[in-house]
Amino acid sequence: MNKTQITIKDIARELGISPSTVSRALKNHPDISQYTKDTVNNYAKEHNYKPNTLALSLRMSKNNTIGVIVPEIIHYFFSSILSGIEQVANLDGFNVIICQSSENYEKEVKNAEALIATRVSGVLACLSKNTTNYDHFQDIIDSDIPLVFFDRICIGINTDRVVVDDYAGAFTAVEYLIQTGCKRIAFYSSPFHLEISKNRKNGYLDALRKYGLKVDESLIKVCDTREEAIIITPEILDRSDRPDGFFAINDHCAAGILYACKLAKLLVPQDVAIMGFSDGELAKACDPMLSTVEQHGFEMGKHAASLLLDKINGNTHGQYTNKIVKTNLIIRGTTR
Amino acid sequence: MNKTQITIKDIARELGISPSTVSRALKNHPDISQYTKDTVNNYAKEHNYKPNTLALSLRMSKNNTIGVIVPEIIHYFFSSILSGIEQVANLDGFNVIICQSSENYEKEVKNAEALIATRVSGVLACLSKNTTNYDHFQDIIDSDIPLVFFDRICIGINTDRVVVDDYAGAFTAVEYLIQTGCKRIAFYSSPFHLEISKNRKNGYLDALRKYGLKVDESLIKVCDTREEAIIITPEILDRSDRPDGFFAINDHCAAGILYACKLAKLLVPQDVAIMGFSDGELAKACDPMLSTVEQHGFEMGKHAASLLLDKINGNTHGQYTNKIVKTNLIIRGTTR
Repeated sequence: MNKTQITIKDIARELGISPSTVSRALKNHPDISQYTKDTVNNYAKEHNYKPNTLALSLRMSKNNTIGVIVPEIIHYFFSSILSGIEQVANLDGFNVIICQSSENYEKEVKNAEALIATRVSGVLACLSKNTTNYDHFQDIIDSDIPLVFFDRICIGINTDRVVVDDYAGAFTAVEYLIQTGCKRIAFYSSPFHLEISKNRKNGYLDALRKYGLKVDESLIKVCDTREEAIIITPEILDRSDRPDGFFAINDHCAAGILYACKLAKLLVPQDVAIMGFSDGELAKACDPMLSTVEQHGFEMGKHAASLLLDKINGNTHGQYTNKIVKTNLIIRGTTR
Repeated sequence: MNKTQITIKDIARELGISPSTVSRALKNHPDISQYTKDTVNNYAKEHNYKPNTLALSLRMSKNNTIGVIVPEIIHYFFSSILSGIEQVANLDGFNVIICQSSENYEKEVKNAEALIATRVSGVLACLSKNTTNYDHFQDIIDSDIPLVFFDRICIGINTDRVVVDDYAGAFTAVEYLIQTGCKRIAFYSSPFHLEISKNRKNGYLDALRKYGLKVDESLIKVCDTREEAIIITPEILDRSDRPDGFFAINDHCAAGILYACKLAKLLVPQDVAIMGFSDGELAKACDPMLSTVEQHGFEMGKHAASLLLDKINGNTHGQYTNKIVKTNLIIRGTTR
């Protein structure tokens, strides 16, 4: 017991390569060169390396816990997803533990490390806004822990994914604004490196193009909170060519635009129409209530948990599923 | 390795007593009778019982993780508390994992078991509405895992606690309604076995008494969601002796009352004044914005995490702290 066991991290440090590479080399993964495999295997043999995955999984095999990495639980959409995850997981006898990345890459990395250390049975993850490096997710896979992405997914890693049909949701929403008389529609988005932003922007642009409306780049802003919307909207409303419609990437942002319009004594929806995205208690608390794109977070959570449980229970055969959850347009008081 | 080790649960089952009793008997706890201690110790010796706490804590000692059991993250107040917890915990190098009880006792028990199995460094807990048995929390303590309660606390278990000053918050809120002209004030509460409900009701009753207003039991209702408030309020507004003020136990409920008043063509705050409790995005999305009692969830989370970290780091000397977080009255548009 006192003899120190050499670990994958020790081997990685000694050979100057990443732990994932060591792990994959030991598993004879096709992406790793024969030279690296030989080097790693020889070093491991010389130093009496023993994989402890089996021991770990034996001793923790009954933890039956799913870990979820989520940006911010304060958003209704994410907490709805979590409710859907819990429902499916609990029915199958699994507990759910939740880690917040708080939209912070470093924290997301620590969340991933903690879930690996806890030996959870599987991980469901939604990227933080700032994440552009994905090694910590590869580490989860390399630790033989099944991984499924939802909502903000990672294209570079082979996993199951569940996404909202962002393109169609955005297209339908903007088309509705146009069909009810809007001619200059602003778009407030999350940062554009995120897939959801790209897809919704494409939906927005294609709807404008379909109806022959000119794209005005000065009406496309990175703004996805109520506070930011309250700050940046007055300047836009003050222009002589102010927009007559807003499409916001979430309801918090739409609520901020509504507040700014009221302050500017503009009538909603007569002077300015506003469309949100998400749908939750906040949308219904606004007056007029927000027109919005319902995202079915609960359904998304259920699909993500089902895909993960299939993997945990070995009911898949190596292929990856890309599940798309449809959206619904909900027309209330902020559109004509 | 193949020989099955006897556990505390095995001993408990064999002797027909609870695992907590076995655990405390083995630790020579003063609450356990000498007879039980002898029985447990003899049985343990005969069957070669070995405590595995040391082995577990050695192998997991670096997990540096705090577990939080919370009723529903969908509520702004709880997610604010979690933000405060994360801030303090992360500064001290701890991760936070969150388990939702979904206001369900059985799930709360499973959450506690999962956190014990994960060997977290400490637990922060807020009771579900339906919890009236607290053995699962005693199990956490008996597993040598520090425990701190916040918001909805358990009186029967000796731990540190952080609570909102519910009595003073409610008293001040109702006093304000009276001072601005309300004479018949309804109170919508969570179930009355919860400490927060008892304390806020006492604040409400004492404010009425101070100003010589009669208590009308028919104006005190168990109702703490927007949906319920929308259902039950029309009947109350329809009475000839309808209330001229409402004090709601949370902002969701207050938003539902506001909605019902608008439907009934009553002016808020002229005909009916409404006071919530919590303060968050929802309160500001309402029109008029909700007057409410700010609970400082973020501060509460910071205090709870600090108390827990003190215990984890051994900076306490056996005494228990009862921290009370003050509230603030926030006057906006739904009161005169």
